Amino acid sequence: MTTDAESFVEHRKLIIAGSGISGLSAAIYAARSNNEPLVFEGDEPGGQLTLTTEVENYPGFPEGISGPELINNMKQQAERFGTDVRHGIIENVDASERPFTVTMKNGDVYTTDAIIAASGASARTLGIPGEENLMGYGLSTCATCDGAFFRGEKIMVIGGGDAAVEEANFLTKFASTVYLVHRREEFRAEDYWVDRLNEKVEAGEIELMLNTEATELHGSPEEGVEHVTLVRNPEGHPTDKLDDPETEEFEFDVGAVFYAIGHTPNADYLEGTGVQRDADGYIIAKGGDGGNQTATDVPGIFAAGDVVDYHYQQAATAGGMGVKAALDADDYLEDLEREEKQAAASAAE
Amino acid sequence: MTTDAESFVEHRKLIIAGSGISGLSAAIYAARSNNEPLVFEGDEPGGQLTLTTEVENYPGFPEGISGPELINNMKQQAERFGTDVRHGIIENVDASERPFTVTMKNGDVYTTDAIIAASGASARTLGIPGEENLMGYGLSTCATCDGAFFRGEKIMVIGGGDAAVEEANFLTKFASTVYLVHRREEFRAEDYWVDRLNEKVEAGEIELMLNTEATELHGSPEEGVEHVTLVRNPEGHPTDKLDDPETEEFEFDVGAVFYAIGHTPNADYLEGTGVQRDADGYIIAKGGDGGNQTATDVPGIFAAGDVVDYHYQQAATAGGMGVKAALDADDYLEDLEREEKQAAASAAE
Repeated sequence: MTTDAESFVEHRKLIIAGSGISGLSAAIYAARSNNEPLVFEGDEPGGQLTLTTEVENYPGFPEGISGPELINNMKQQAERFGTDVRHGIIENVDASERPFTVTMKNGDVYTTDAIIAASGASARTLGIPGEENLMGYGLSTCATCDGAFFRGEKIMVIGGGDAAVEEANFLTKFASTVYLVHRREEFRAEDYWVDRLNEKVEAGEIELMLNTEATELHGSPEEGVEHVTLVRNPEGHPTDKLDDPETEEFEFDVGAVFYAIGHTPNADYLEGTGVQRDADGYIIAKGGDGGNQTATDVPGIFAAGDVVDYHYQQAATAGGMGVKAALDADDYLEDLEREEKQAAASAAE
Repeated sequence: MTTDAESFVEHRKLIIAGSGISGLSAAIYAARSNNEPLVFEGDEPGGQLTLTTEVENYPGFPEGISGPELINNMKQQAERFGTDVRHGIIENVDASERPFTVTMKNGDVYTTDAIIAASGASARTLGIPGEENLMGYGLSTCATCDGAFFRGEKIMVIGGGDAAVEEANFLTKFASTVYLVHRREEFRAEDYWVDRLNEKVEAGEIELMLNTEATELHGSPEEGVEHVTLVRNPEGHPTDKLDDPETEEFEFDVGAVFYAIGHTPNADYLEGTGVQRDADGYIIAKGGDGGNQTATDVPGIFAAGDVVDYHYQQAATAGGMGVKAALDADDYLEDLEREEKQAAASAAE
């Protein structure tokens, strides 16, 4: 493709999309391999982990570390070895020619020999009052990350799919009672999960709050979540029926709220490149044993972290995959350099 | 199987074999999931990372951290949430009945519902004088880990297989010159790697020292490696021909030595369990996307880290896989508990 001279910024060996754990872990390795990575932060700099106040399960910090501090450490570490981190959101990638052309939302254009897509997945939120203020302070989108902080407390889980039922089950390890809030009567979760749910309900460990939705979270960063405003309608979807006389509003005391209403992988900028994604939009990486596990269907485009991994989604797993992507990209870039040298040598003959 | 009452120690929900990065990362997560893991340290407590003085590429430590300190941090973190770490080497596992029976080298017997094999791979060494003293101080078994410490220096790589040629190539990024010492005339490496090697030799970045072996490393932990005693015989395998008049001995100055003579995965204790291993002895894990990636062919036995991963073998990748194993084991143990409850309920009817 032809690039507008005015919007063209520079050519890079490696562009990393995303500055969460996977992107920065990739950057540390890529910089140490002299691939001078450029990291674009996207619109959630630092990624999902910045939503978690205290990270107790990232291996290496016996007393825990705050999410923002861990991210900041990795950013410094990546920069120390020669990573550039810049603000910027990738609009699209043209992979029809080498080098790839990367066009930013603001119109800037870069070319690059390789890309690591580490652009993560965003946890869906309800967009209700109290949410922004309490995220990381009693409101969480990750039971595995944060469940253990609420031992002995009443924990509310919001959602009706597999993730919600799985998280509600998991949180019974810690909670005095788990309250599972779902806007309909029936769960969309697999029978397997619903069976497990019913056992826990029978055992008194989970209470179901069906045909119910949250409309406001109350509390403070200091005190955490204190209570939640809920609405209920016997026909379900109560927030669509606030004027219905059957809809009742009430307050409910809990110590923590977990959203489990899904994630959306951030990979739309790769549309049209040939990178394969699954039905939910997650990038399909090669996997397997041996090398090149993070390769996509497009040679030179690698993927790591939550934009690939819809299951584990932990800081340590994202970091590990970021490292793999950097090593895979390094192999690719070495091959490319070698081919270019051979082509130049042939041309000179 | 029947267990000798005197040697039987206790039953555990989860035994983790190995206290390197993958085992301890698994333990942190397993402990937080209330699975009360018991970690056996094996005969290399802390694993491969304890051989590395300074770890600059484990994400989260911008100034680097020493290998032993990182391991110690993870051990404390695992213990904080309820992990037991004990000395002990597993002799064998009987997986023919549930729970599994784990017999230790000292005769102690444990039973366990699940096992995570995180027993790593040991880098092979030559067993020559100077080795023990200089390991981590100029002598390394991991170019990716330690190459960047020797920018601008003369680096010696010892070995003749793919790993040796790959590491020699990689180290040209940093070294003034790489000296590749191989005991024979020909390389066992793939043509692909030999081609790349020859290009670097032509470019003057790598010098070959064929039919040559190291017999002693000289230097000190303070000053690092200073020189190496080498022997050479035109017919190869000089250390087998020390009395041959054709064998010459000489000293050679270098700033660092990298051994690349292979790794041996530590998984013999799983012999007979049905856990599948590849031709080199590495455990075959299920992989793929979604959950249960660390499952082996035996339900309830999971595997993580260098005992599986023969390619990346980094602290961050081993840690990520350890976390996956703990989450996979937790799913398994939850299912098991549920089945047992159902069986008990049926029996009571």
